[in-house]
Amino acid sequence: MFPYIFRYEISPHISVHLECKGILHSSRSSFQKIEVVESLDFGRMLVLDGVINLTERDEFVYHEMLAHVPLFSHPDPLKILIVGGGDGGTVREVLKHEGISRIQQVEIDREIIAISKKYFPSLSSSLDHPKVNLLLMDAVQYVRDIKEKFDIILIDSTDPVIDQSEGLFTVPFYRDCLNALTEQGILASQVGDISFDTGVVLDVFSKLKEVFPIVRIFRAPIPSYTLVPYSFAFCSKTIRPEMGLGPSRFSKSFQTRYYNDQIHKAAFALPEHLRKEFEN
Amino acid sequence: MFPYIFRYEISPHISVHLECKGILHSSRSSFQKIEVVESLDFGRMLVLDGVINLTERDEFVYHEMLAHVPLFSHPDPLKILIVGGGDGGTVREVLKHEGISRIQQVEIDREIIAISKKYFPSLSSSLDHPKVNLLLMDAVQYVRDIKEKFDIILIDSTDPVIDQSEGLFTVPFYRDCLNALTEQGILASQVGDISFDTGVVLDVFSKLKEVFPIVRIFRAPIPSYTLVPYSFAFCSKTIRPEMGLGPSRFSKSFQTRYYNDQIHKAAFALPEHLRKEFEN
Repeated sequence: MFPYIFRYEISPHISVHLECKGILHSSRSSFQKIEVVESLDFGRMLVLDGVINLTERDEFVYHEMLAHVPLFSHPDPLKILIVGGGDGGTVREVLKHEGISRIQQVEIDREIIAISKKYFPSLSSSLDHPKVNLLLMDAVQYVRDIKEKFDIILIDSTDPVIDQSEGLFTVPFYRDCLNALTEQGILASQVGDISFDTGVVLDVFSKLKEVFPIVRIFRAPIPSYTLVPYSFAFCSKTIRPEMGLGPSRFSKSFQTRYYNDQIHKAAFALPEHLRKEFEN
Repeated sequence: MFPYIFRYEISPHISVHLECKGILHSSRSSFQKIEVVESLDFGRMLVLDGVINLTERDEFVYHEMLAHVPLFSHPDPLKILIVGGGDGGTVREVLKHEGISRIQQVEIDREIIAISKKYFPSLSSSLDHPKVNLLLMDAVQYVRDIKEKFDIILIDSTDPVIDQSEGLFTVPFYRDCLNALTEQGILASQVGDISFDTGVVLDVFSKLKEVFPIVRIFRAPIPSYTLVPYSFAFCSKTIRPEMGLGPSRFSKSFQTRYYNDQIHKAAFALPEHLRKEFEN
């Protein structure tokens, strides 16, 4: 069993091979195959339907960027809705903003939470925080029936090509999210690999553009995902990402490993060949 | 022979496997093993001693960033010295700056030029431009005996761990380069993979800091090199990278695929965990 090689495809013609110590867990929930794999260079990895969902080595990049880019763009975020994110990494980052009064999390798969509590305590322990209210249900239905307004909605799901996440990448869902946002509200979502799946990302981008007045792509390198920076969408009615960053809130006492004020701005810079496709 | 798999290591425990159509060329020069490999996703690749040196798919990122970041930081670059770069990609980018009066290129390996002329004409054709003077010799010796001053020096070599490039990553060589620069002169060099070879990059960085008053790291993702953005060094006596960019010179008529004014600034943003190590 040692060395066990975990192999994932970047494209049909490119694969990455990771040397691993073994598989710590393997099960099938109602929604997906869930594995926990111990790799040498990326540490412990959560693998969903054969795709790396997070690794100990680089999960901080994903979670910090998904949370802090929208939260530091908003003047005063109080109420946060997290869609998915059952591992707890996004909650952990949101909780660093002390002004937050309430975090509503909606996760469809109970198993993800249980497995994360066992194998990823540095992420999942945040789920027990008193500000967090965790609902186990389909977020599409939750957002459709919503009465409350949120300052920030974070979509921390698996990819649009995965069955149970498909509904999270549709125009009706985005309209319901828009409806659930305050006037200065911001939605951020992971949208995928802009290099080898440009078609998928462009499709999500065009749906977001149908619904939100402001849609911008931001990026961060997540080495266990793909070979080029991974992309996220920033969507709002009125707020632009360059407006909100207050050094009063991002200070030296705010602990991050990836995010900082320079990175916030830099993440929105697109190479010339992408700028032409994605710029408003 | 088909599919032929080209395999390269990101770290001792991570490898990338590229499906290829075959090997178009294989020879050994006085300095290195040179191969040209036709891959499905990265197109034609120049492989030196088993390491990808450039690919048709992403060479523009490397060459645009190595050339345009220093050239657009300088108020009026006229004379350019290129160390290495026998494929011609860096010359191609430098020549886009119309004010350039003279490009001195010093390449140690005649074979690289011959093979690039045969297999990479979109890069190598620039070597025949009348502004280019090509010398076949060791750049360490050339720079030691130099009388002339240059506005920009670009180090377009193989990695510091490779024998024939070792001399290009030393304090004496950097002192000779400093001596060969005008007062507003800038040196830029590729310095490697900041993620899995942080030690190597930190070592080069500290040597540069011994010699140059201003040393800054900038980065760009080059998917065929490594999993995270690849790093370059920007070194000067007086010029800072944020000073020189003139929209008068970077305009819509300046054709690039990666570089633009946003990318120029964004490339210098370092994640929090690297900022602490590399910031001046």
